[in-house]
Amino acid sequence: MDQFNPVTQQIVTQLERIAGAEHVLTSSFDIEPYTHDETEDLQYTPEAVVKPRATEQISEIMRLCSAGRVPVTPRGGGTGLSGGALPVRGGVVLSLERMNGILEIDTKNFMAVCEPGVITQNLHEAAEALGLFYPPDPASRASCTLGGNLAECAGGPRTLKYGVTRDYVRGLEAVLPNGDIINTGGKLLKNVTGYDLTQLLIGSEGTLAVITKIIVRLIPLPRLRRTLLAPFSSLDHATAALNAIFMNRIFPCAAEFMERDAIQNAVRMLDRPFPCSDAHALLLLELDGDDETVIQADIERAGQACLDGGASDVLVAESPAKQEQLWSVRRAMGEAVKKHSAYREEDTVVPRAMLPELVRAIKDVAARHGIRTICYGHAGDGNIHCNIVKSALSEQEWKTKLPGAVTELHKIVVAMGGTLSGEHGIGCLQNNHLPLAVGRAELELMKGIKKVFDPLGILNPGKVFPDNDVV
Amino acid sequence: MDQFNPVTQQIVTQLERIAGAEHVLTSSFDIEPYTHDETEDLQYTPEAVVKPRATEQISEIMRLCSAGRVPVTPRGGGTGLSGGALPVRGGVVLSLERMNGILEIDTKNFMAVCEPGVITQNLHEAAEALGLFYPPDPASRASCTLGGNLAECAGGPRTLKYGVTRDYVRGLEAVLPNGDIINTGGKLLKNVTGYDLTQLLIGSEGTLAVITKIIVRLIPLPRLRRTLLAPFSSLDHATAALNAIFMNRIFPCAAEFMERDAIQNAVRMLDRPFPCSDAHALLLLELDGDDETVIQADIERAGQACLDGGASDVLVAESPAKQEQLWSVRRAMGEAVKKHSAYREEDTVVPRAMLPELVRAIKDVAARHGIRTICYGHAGDGNIHCNIVKSALSEQEWKTKLPGAVTELHKIVVAMGGTLSGEHGIGCLQNNHLPLAVGRAELELMKGIKKVFDPLGILNPGKVFPDNDVV
Repeated sequence: MDQFNPVTQQIVTQLERIAGAEHVLTSSFDIEPYTHDETEDLQYTPEAVVKPRATEQISEIMRLCSAGRVPVTPRGGGTGLSGGALPVRGGVVLSLERMNGILEIDTKNFMAVCEPGVITQNLHEAAEALGLFYPPDPASRASCTLGGNLAECAGGPRTLKYGVTRDYVRGLEAVLPNGDIINTGGKLLKNVTGYDLTQLLIGSEGTLAVITKIIVRLIPLPRLRRTLLAPFSSLDHATAALNAIFMNRIFPCAAEFMERDAIQNAVRMLDRPFPCSDAHALLLLELDGDDETVIQADIERAGQACLDGGASDVLVAESPAKQEQLWSVRRAMGEAVKKHSAYREEDTVVPRAMLPELVRAIKDVAARHGIRTICYGHAGDGNIHCNIVKSALSEQEWKTKLPGAVTELHKIVVAMGGTLSGEHGIGCLQNNHLPLAVGRAELELMKGIKKVFDPLGILNPGKVFPDNDVV
Repeated sequence: MDQFNPVTQQIVTQLERIAGAEHVLTSSFDIEPYTHDETEDLQYTPEAVVKPRATEQISEIMRLCSAGRVPVTPRGGGTGLSGGALPVRGGVVLSLERMNGILEIDTKNFMAVCEPGVITQNLHEAAEALGLFYPPDPASRASCTLGGNLAECAGGPRTLKYGVTRDYVRGLEAVLPNGDIINTGGKLLKNVTGYDLTQLLIGSEGTLAVITKIIVRLIPLPRLRRTLLAPFSSLDHATAALNAIFMNRIFPCAAEFMERDAIQNAVRMLDRPFPCSDAHALLLLELDGDDETVIQADIERAGQACLDGGASDVLVAESPAKQEQLWSVRRAMGEAVKKHSAYREEDTVVPRAMLPELVRAIKDVAARHGIRTICYGHAGDGNIHCNIVKSALSEQEWKTKLPGAVTELHKIVVAMGGTLSGEHGIGCLQNNHLPLAVGRAELELMKGIKKVFDPLGILNPGKVFPDNDVV
């Protein structure tokens, strides 16, 4: 392990000078909100939290912490699901929360320029007010930030048609661990001018540089949306119907899958009625477009494919209010599982057509290990959030059974051509499992890249790489 | 400069053992086709050419050349426009031409698995026969290869709506300079499992690894296409009309710009009539979609926007034959310029709305330096191929005037928020200009990454990095 130094009073004084005393937190009371994110059971306490307002301040902070060999962990909205924003080696949490300005929405070039602390939904709303569209929509969009979305390459339901965060970012400003400020890309739709550092930073989970400015591409906002809910009597039927929809060349913008326990947890938490909430499995489809006739024909074809595939009913929500009613349940599922029980969430992803096999395999593994799972997620992407829940297990049973079940699940997923994380990242939750999915030569390349950016290893240590592979 | 060793007879013997004697070329006659690509004026002679058939052979070749410190330059279709496939430091050209199999078109997952030597158009046709679509379409699509497309992150007209090569690649197999075989990604629509080596390799111009297998995402093939040609009396009017089309929220799949000289050269070369070929500037738009009514309404709105913007006419091509007639002229422009005169092609790219300024700046620079330019390209992406032509200049004048004009143009483009290359790459054509667009800290990161992958510097030396910045 790298040897780091503690945050001395001298460093705190310097941080206060750089960011202003009111933006440096050191008391345990003030620091508490920064000790966890939305990942289950993880808690790490930083020695100090600093909330800079400008790139130059971040540059100074990084120079200071490099000189002092103090770990720095960047943090956005704190909604991560792999512990990416947690200071596992102590040191300084660098919160981007005050850098939350939408600097420009460029309607001529269809680009937005944002600070990293912008709440994702704020960008959605600002773009949509101008008839433009920023598609990535993680479930936490009301509280997560763009910087965090980039760090973890966030997805969301609309990924299916529109792609992930990576597909929208065209340029960055970022600060290296040594304090150097770099600029990559620009308001450009094409660029082959040296290696693509923009793409390298996206999904690097805050381990290579601190993102301080973001240029994203926008697209025209589709005028119409239709949401369809179809209940099925089995998981297999639901996933097979979805395959049929793709084979029929219908291209929904979202295709979500939810099993009964996930629905019922969410309905209970929201205390709101939900259609077909006793179905064994539900498909939630959304289509969008600009033409009334086309979208109507497509939603009818999609509904028919569901009925042909065994759906007992098909409900179409045309009004935004009805659509929101369906989506609010889907978005509440993560929080509802958390309220229900101790749990561990796996962000498994496989080639889309393997989804029925994946769901079967999850249930098999669970049965073998005597545990319960609650599954839901982005079926159209082959990305299922599999929650392994403690429920009635004793603490001892839970601790004994969980690791074996998780490892077995990962191995099955990799054997199916899938991998550990579709949109949550590795962080400090999956880092010791990384070698199950990433070979030795590939891991050595990644370690080499980390060293190029961060030779002292002070930026977000303890993430991505296995503990015995410390860079 | 790195010290490399010559290709000894012993190494040739080893290459013959690995790939078969008939697949190793050493005579100057056999080697000649590998001494140039489609870049103007560049010629470099390799000491040997090897044409392996399998990844394991490439692994052995790389081990051999690493041990012998012999440069290796990977080569696809040889259609590059920045000299990326040319052996500027001699050594071995590794041609992927025999690895040309489409291994799978997976209609369940909408993915294709290909060897790097697949001709791009062959993938287009194989996918389209199944109702699927691989959008990237460089002008050289009938002879370029997927491996080369990835190396240079090729674009093409359809980039506007569908994105560049980068946006379709989901996984790779590649061979490192030391012979290690790596695998990245998979048939996955989402993946945040360690740093994204797939994206890093795309656009790295064959300097980091030899790509040996490619997984690309496919999308449903749009059923309908409409092509529109509009003549304008000035460049400014044409580019302003295009801006108006975007502001009207019409989203063509392609929006090409051509000036009169470019059209007339191509028409002369093809010896085929072309409508409006005496117009000062033409816009060639293509819309696609699945619904007859929608596409018809959009093409009418686009046509009206052109007329409002000063077009003297609007021609719509509905039949594939008529469309091909228009596109064949557009695609022939590069070759036609080449036939016309000695030239130098710049692949300038700026934020799209800056296009009128870019075109004006190009003409200003040309006037100041007493040179001629012929411009055409992907106006919808802000990506103009600016050909500086020798025409009537003496050899001496050409050599004196060209470097200053090119440097000045690059500086103006960068000042507009643009960069050196949109889709051709840096190669050995622009490498000494790279610092105009890429800062020192960014360049040092790129050099660091190069060293991680290729510590001996044997893979495609003399590319991307400035000559005095040799890695």
